[in-house]
Amino acid sequence: MWTFDGIPVARIEAAYGVTLDRTWLDAVQASAVRLTNGCSAGLVSGEGLAVTNGHCVADCAQALSSSGDDYVQDGFLTEAREDERKCPGLQAEVLLTIIDVTDQVRLASEGKAGRDFVQARDGALAVAELAACGQDQTLRCQAIGFFRGGQYKVYKYRRYNDVRLVFMPEMASASFGGDPDNFNFPRYAFDIGFVRLYVDDAPAATPTFLPWRGKPPADGEPTFVVGNPGSTERQLTVAQLETQRDVVLPMLQLQRAELRGRLIQFGRDDADQARAASQALAWVQNSYKLSVGKQAALNDPAFLDAKRADDAALRAKVAADPKLADTTGAWDEIAKAQPAAADLFPALRMLETGAGGGSELYYYARLLVRAALERAKPEAERLPEYADARLPLIERKLADAPPIDPALERIYLEHWLLKTREALTVDAPRVRALLGRDSPERLAEALSGSALSDPEVRMALWKGGLAAVEASDDPLVRFVLRADPIARAARAAYEARVSGPVDIAAEKIAKARVAVLGDGAYPDATFSLRLSYGKVAGWKARGEAVRATTTFAGFYDRVTGVEPFAAAPRWLEAKGRLKSDTVFDFVSTNDIIGGNSGSPVLDAKGRLMGVAFDGNLPSLGGAYGYDGARNRTISVSAVAIVEALSKVYGRDALVKELTGR
Amino acid sequence: MWTFDGIPVARIEAAYGVTLDRTWLDAVQASAVRLTNGCSAGLVSGEGLAVTNGHCVADCAQALSSSGDDYVQDGFLTEAREDERKCPGLQAEVLLTIIDVTDQVRLASEGKAGRDFVQARDGALAVAELAACGQDQTLRCQAIGFFRGGQYKVYKYRRYNDVRLVFMPEMASASFGGDPDNFNFPRYAFDIGFVRLYVDDAPAATPTFLPWRGKPPADGEPTFVVGNPGSTERQLTVAQLETQRDVVLPMLQLQRAELRGRLIQFGRDDADQARAASQALAWVQNSYKLSVGKQAALNDPAFLDAKRADDAALRAKVAADPKLADTTGAWDEIAKAQPAAADLFPALRMLETGAGGGSELYYYARLLVRAALERAKPEAERLPEYADARLPLIERKLADAPPIDPALERIYLEHWLLKTREALTVDAPRVRALLGRDSPERLAEALSGSALSDPEVRMALWKGGLAAVEASDDPLVRFVLRADPIARAARAAYEARVSGPVDIAAEKIAKARVAVLGDGAYPDATFSLRLSYGKVAGWKARGEAVRATTTFAGFYDRVTGVEPFAAAPRWLEAKGRLKSDTVFDFVSTNDIIGGNSGSPVLDAKGRLMGVAFDGNLPSLGGAYGYDGARNRTISVSAVAIVEALSKVYGRDALVKELTGR
Repeated sequence: MWTFDGIPVARIEAAYGVTLDRTWLDAVQASAVRLTNGCSAGLVSGEGLAVTNGHCVADCAQALSSSGDDYVQDGFLTEAREDERKCPGLQAEVLLTIIDVTDQVRLASEGKAGRDFVQARDGALAVAELAACGQDQTLRCQAIGFFRGGQYKVYKYRRYNDVRLVFMPEMASASFGGDPDNFNFPRYAFDIGFVRLYVDDAPAATPTFLPWRGKPPADGEPTFVVGNPGSTERQLTVAQLETQRDVVLPMLQLQRAELRGRLIQFGRDDADQARAASQALAWVQNSYKLSVGKQAALNDPAFLDAKRADDAALRAKVAADPKLADTTGAWDEIAKAQPAAADLFPALRMLETGAGGGSELYYYARLLVRAALERAKPEAERLPEYADARLPLIERKLADAPPIDPALERIYLEHWLLKTREALTVDAPRVRALLGRDSPERLAEALSGSALSDPEVRMALWKGGLAAVEASDDPLVRFVLRADPIARAARAAYEARVSGPVDIAAEKIAKARVAVLGDGAYPDATFSLRLSYGKVAGWKARGEAVRATTTFAGFYDRVTGVEPFAAAPRWLEAKGRLKSDTVFDFVSTNDIIGGNSGSPVLDAKGRLMGVAFDGNLPSLGGAYGYDGARNRTISVSAVAIVEALSKVYGRDALVKELTGR
Repeated sequence: MWTFDGIPVARIEAAYGVTLDRTWLDAVQASAVRLTNGCSAGLVSGEGLAVTNGHCVADCAQALSSSGDDYVQDGFLTEAREDERKCPGLQAEVLLTIIDVTDQVRLASEGKAGRDFVQARDGALAVAELAACGQDQTLRCQAIGFFRGGQYKVYKYRRYNDVRLVFMPEMASASFGGDPDNFNFPRYAFDIGFVRLYVDDAPAATPTFLPWRGKPPADGEPTFVVGNPGSTERQLTVAQLETQRDVVLPMLQLQRAELRGRLIQFGRDDADQARAASQALAWVQNSYKLSVGKQAALNDPAFLDAKRADDAALRAKVAADPKLADTTGAWDEIAKAQPAAADLFPALRMLETGAGGGSELYYYARLLVRAALERAKPEAERLPEYADARLPLIERKLADAPPIDPALERIYLEHWLLKTREALTVDAPRVRALLGRDSPERLAEALSGSALSDPEVRMALWKGGLAAVEASDDPLVRFVLRADPIARAARAAYEARVSGPVDIAAEKIAKARVAVLGDGAYPDATFSLRLSYGKVAGWKARGEAVRATTTFAGFYDRVTGVEPFAAAPRWLEAKGRLKSDTVFDFVSTNDIIGGNSGSPVLDAKGRLMGVAFDGNLPSLGGAYGYDGARNRTISVSAVAIVEALSKVYGRDALVKELTGR
């Protein structure tokens, strides 16, 4: 996960004999796309066409669907450019430059502690963003901390507000194998999708793009994954990992498991409800398995022992270096904050970071209430996420109109209120303040009747500011007005006793790490552009070798006809036409994580050989540390994409745009 | 949790100044009742009347309900003896004698290992049972291992097959506070119930019973809890506890959380379904919280450190004693088996010990299939639970007719099949053998159509034996015939690589513990009669003192009118008549665990001062170790019972039977 201002060219050359020169890197950077829905993509034609995953455009396909057209189930299969349709709310960003702002952020936050430190740092980051991009709406600037505060950079992007859906296969193909196959291999998913970037209602000119490769991936050949890994926590100390293991992950998993049960049952005997819940369920199942995988890594004594050895080695080097004297106590400072982290996390999660439990309506209500309260203050006193530079994005979010299902909203809200009462206890004054004399069940029913599903209602409250919000009789707005001080108190307590002291200590450790170890390691993932190098390779699971590739023939063998192993009719019909030994999916040793979905997988010449869509189960532990023996990236091969576009879907124009033939 | 053949009379005298003489102990033993549904009770009149918990008779009340009478919701409030009704399938047992059979069991199993050891031991236990009770149907003999194999005893009981429901309050009173209050305190639950033992259609003569006490519990006074704690695992080594923490408990919790979500959602918008699922949901929520509490104890580093110190202290003493030389390696042998335990537990759980996921139909089908297969073998070669001595109980279970809800059955089966596929992976041959080319969803639907809900169908298969079972076209019988060898293989593998070696090593440690420490500690709970001594006392939670008692006044303060804090109408109406300062529920330091529900709580004179119905949250860690500073038993006071029976329910005859007035 190397940043593009720090690619270890010599090391790659030594390991794989491949030289990534400036031309290679510049072309790849200019072809790499970040999608604002948390996915990656790659430009594959000069006319703004980008390849990504099917699961990355499923939300769009669902938003474009109507009672007559179910694009998620049937696929979104355009014939011509005119059929391409704008994905509501989706934006694409291509990285232009990286600006180092470490010094100015340090200057602003130096000597501060606790919540003051957090506010000063985040304020300085907002200022740096504004300085780099101004008010230019074709740009986006995002300040990002690397090495847990060891470095701060502003990433400046070309922004595309008009992203249109070009192609998505049927969900049965994109997610063949469903939840059971998720994070597993061998795999037979056609998890790809295409979007096109538009400017002024015409396809964007993208002269730099990734050439398509006609040859299948070969065992052992070098692979380069270019995309935006979302988040890793590899610099957490062992004390922090234990809090993750014992407090954070169990709570997340258990709540997701229960919500999963609710969503499954909700759709059990009602096809319409099942369809309405399908994306939500897929999301919950995926999140659930993610935390299960992370927990498995932390439950592995060998994994934590290795982390312990890392901590000890760095501490020994720090202790031996008089220049780093003020860092020696940092590990203990972090450890000292862990009891508070364990105590305060449930309230932070339930009341602040996970408030609303996934409800879109709650998200809008809180955005409106908080924005109204914060905009009434001088910028320096606001919560950092409501700085002036963030307001346009908030406004756009409020104006978007993704579909909202009231029945699902009620499930999310009820589940959240029930779990909040359980986690914080019935008699806690803040729980009583939230619920009053009502029950979670009745309250959720009332709140899910909010009119905030209507973007016009939202925009009226946004424009009306605090006066309008305070005068609103919407049940959810009124509820959030009541909940907001409680949530802020939970956050302030956590920042004062956990984030504040921990971030300061972590920054010291991060600086020491860079000082002692040099730039021999890459920073934690931050949903910013990274390059990972590796090779096509299987691995060993339960003592048996797992091969690196699957074929179309294997796919047809696995089809049972029953969900989630039912093939789409189009694929059944095309069976005889497809080359059965075509490499379908493949694994490689690249270090990726959620956010890399849709990342182009390139060969040594920078040609597109596949599209990453998943990791194997051990790769989920990659959140805390990469294990090259077991962690694998799973991709759809470029040859399978072209073969299927041509013979299953008859999309010759698209094939020609990709391959020139 | 002292056994009645090892009460530490001197120690109790030293601690509390109370002398429990033979008369006291004999009277208490003769008054203590074990219910076959996993609860405890106490005789409180000479005519077979026993007090227990409301939640212990809720299943019975549900079975007796019809479309017109919902005894769970409205309570089962008899006016006269003639209204008392038999609880289907419920039996009561009163302990007569305890017979030590350690030597003969040792002799049979000595020198054997692995599965052979398990079979020889269990075979010898079955023989000992038969020797003690013969075929006398008024008796029950049960062989029980104590100290993890350090001792074996046969418990000989007077058995009552006719147990009738006398009184159960409305569920809103019995479980006031519902899941949020479960395992919490302060508490305001009227969780009591009365049953009567019958012999030959007349109330049983029970000349020895517990006298009722008219005085409320006083802070600090000694309390004696007499009942049947179900199961503790306090002699597990740290290596085993880590397997519990990292493998067993997370799996159980996550599956229960998901099932809980399904059951909540199942009842969400349908009052009939909500009612049908209410008991199932209560059970799942209770099991869920139990494992959460156990996990919390194991996640507490101080708790495991104390266990580590215990292990180390015992190992040091063993190492210093040449007579115990063959025990020195036992801890390492147990540790060495833990990777296999972690590997094999998921299959053991999904295919064998938790097979069917709670489905009653599955339980019957497996009982029928296994019994047919096992009865065809010589007794010595059978699975121990199908020894001749066990067959009458199996037959009675098959003949019982508790209500079975097909919709719930389908949920259980589907959830189980889905989780089995998830835990054991899609491509595993045994999963393929179970599912064939079907999906868990479709298969569960087909299986839940089984005709085994009809006791006549079951009895026909029971009587027809293997030929009838193999000829059956019932979908569930056919499925279990297919699943049985797979389940047996999972069990055999676990016994060979885990239970076998671990049980042998654990028995060595247990013997060494007794040799080194004497009988200064009681054995793990085994759902057999125990006495726990303690005192009325609150504790400190989150730095604040929790008082030991609640009152009726506190109950009325807590009522919100919304579930689960809605009071039953009868209680609202009676408010003015009740003495508001009556002690309602109280806590004491007694060491109890699930199975103790319904246990009489006695004062120094052996008078009934309350009925235990719950523990506090820290007490759930009592599965692994008792912490007197925090673990608490929660009971309904005897004074509250009489006050409410009289002024809320107008049951003067019952009050007279209890108090003589």
